[in-house]
Amino acid sequence: MLLGGIEAGGTKFVCAVSNGNSKQIIDKVSFPTGNPEETLLEAKGFFEKHAIEALGVASFGPVDLNIKSKTYGSFLNTPKEKWKHYPLLEQLRALFNIPVYMDTDVNAACLAEYKFGAGQGSDTCLYITVGTGFGAGLVQNGEIYQGKNHSEMGHVIIKKHPDDPYDGCCPYHGSCIEGMASGLAIEKRYGKKGMELTENDQVWDIEAYYLAQAIMNYYVVLIPEKIIVGGGVMKQEKLYPLIRSYFAEQMNGYLDVGPVDELIVAPELNDEQGVIGAMELIRTK
Amino acid sequence: MLLGGIEAGGTKFVCAVSNGNSKQIIDKVSFPTGNPEETLLEAKGFFEKHAIEALGVASFGPVDLNIKSKTYGSFLNTPKEKWKHYPLLEQLRALFNIPVYMDTDVNAACLAEYKFGAGQGSDTCLYITVGTGFGAGLVQNGEIYQGKNHSEMGHVIIKKHPDDPYDGCCPYHGSCIEGMASGLAIEKRYGKKGMELTENDQVWDIEAYYLAQAIMNYYVVLIPEKIIVGGGVMKQEKLYPLIRSYFAEQMNGYLDVGPVDELIVAPELNDEQGVIGAMELIRTK
Repeated sequence: MLLGGIEAGGTKFVCAVSNGNSKQIIDKVSFPTGNPEETLLEAKGFFEKHAIEALGVASFGPVDLNIKSKTYGSFLNTPKEKWKHYPLLEQLRALFNIPVYMDTDVNAACLAEYKFGAGQGSDTCLYITVGTGFGAGLVQNGEIYQGKNHSEMGHVIIKKHPDDPYDGCCPYHGSCIEGMASGLAIEKRYGKKGMELTENDQVWDIEAYYLAQAIMNYYVVLIPEKIIVGGGVMKQEKLYPLIRSYFAEQMNGYLDVGPVDELIVAPELNDEQGVIGAMELIRTK
Repeated sequence: MLLGGIEAGGTKFVCAVSNGNSKQIIDKVSFPTGNPEETLLEAKGFFEKHAIEALGVASFGPVDLNIKSKTYGSFLNTPKEKWKHYPLLEQLRALFNIPVYMDTDVNAACLAEYKFGAGQGSDTCLYITVGTGFGAGLVQNGEIYQGKNHSEMGHVIIKKHPDDPYDGCCPYHGSCIEGMASGLAIEKRYGKKGMELTENDQVWDIEAYYLAQAIMNYYVVLIPEKIIVGGGVMKQEKLYPLIRSYFAEQMNGYLDVGPVDELIVAPELNDEQGVIGAMELIRTK
């Protein structure tokens, strides 16, 4: 049985086909995200080469994932004007005429890492992505956690680093975790992208200080067995030991977290966790 | 079928018996918490009058609730010396020789309010207790949320109120939510208990400012449909509108939270949510 997966990102779409096992991708394509109609037709063109029987979609957000809602599967108030309120799930179902399952990109990535990657063997697995934005998703006992909706967990409250004069870029909260630690926050604070600041130790010290606080907030609420931190900003691998160190310092002995280098880890699926997770949604939903 | 419930609090034990429906209590007793052996014998004496077939226990914490752990059902590192590492669940099973089920007091209270109180009709229900300490529990689709263990969610990060010089009383984190907004924090900050400060508006303004931040942290991670706030400190009913107002201000339009006076509410079970929840554990676990 062939399965299709789409990682619908804000800047690019990744489409893949697997043969039963979502991790074994037999064909894959990637193209820039344009307007909704053109982008979906490009995806359709790719999948026409394969007789897929179901499709999973891991989408950028915010999307309405409340199954009781009339706009289930539609984008909410995204800054990407052409995608605002676009009924993605409905359009894909009409276009492909096969079962289509949808969740957020971060939830799908969490599911993929839980099943095939760094989260294997854990019962409760949190996946955090630090890219242009900031988001997190939780999988527990094979199921994606969702309350009334999925928030992407990106706006928890943190304390300012004493040496950081920046007030944050979140349009709602200023200095929440997304406002202080996303890739956009780095770029706005320093006037340069993170990848141009590799040699500036203070940048990564402050970044780790904030990410550790968000992780502490998630930890004390959710007590995950595994916390996987991925996304473009985490390509700076020096962040991992810094985050672990600040996390241990901030927790200060509260709760037995076990070995922190086994708790807070990098993803293992080589940037394919989104599209693999999209295909895994078919089994899970 | 008669069910027994124990709300095992740090200062008092409440024992109750119900006839099938946990909400219909047919006998109840309450006595101060002494040393473990005496306190359990006093409970045993009460339940001997009733042919209970199962027992539920809603305990103060921290307790080990990781079912894979060798010390499952035992107290962890509590400041109450005589209860430290006491194997409560094992002792109750030996003493009563009937099925015994255990969870934390705040989780049990959440379950009771979800089934019979202010949480009825919601799929995802958060219960927060603000008493001497601070804790929260989550019930989703009838099940108590638990990660690797239950943390009681009491140590999330918040920002200091600009007019509050107090540095917090949490022995681990100083100014986390428990350190700034628990009943103990109020007493240590002002040198008086909350009930003696009823007329001081600034006390409750600052208290609401902190509680709203904790609720925001929970909200963006969990997206509960209902948030029930109980415990001794919440007897100051003026806190509810203040918390709602600060919560709306801090969220600042991020996510559609619906009517905030329906989201953040008081418990409805008249301080019996703990012991009713204890009995409901029998059905749930």
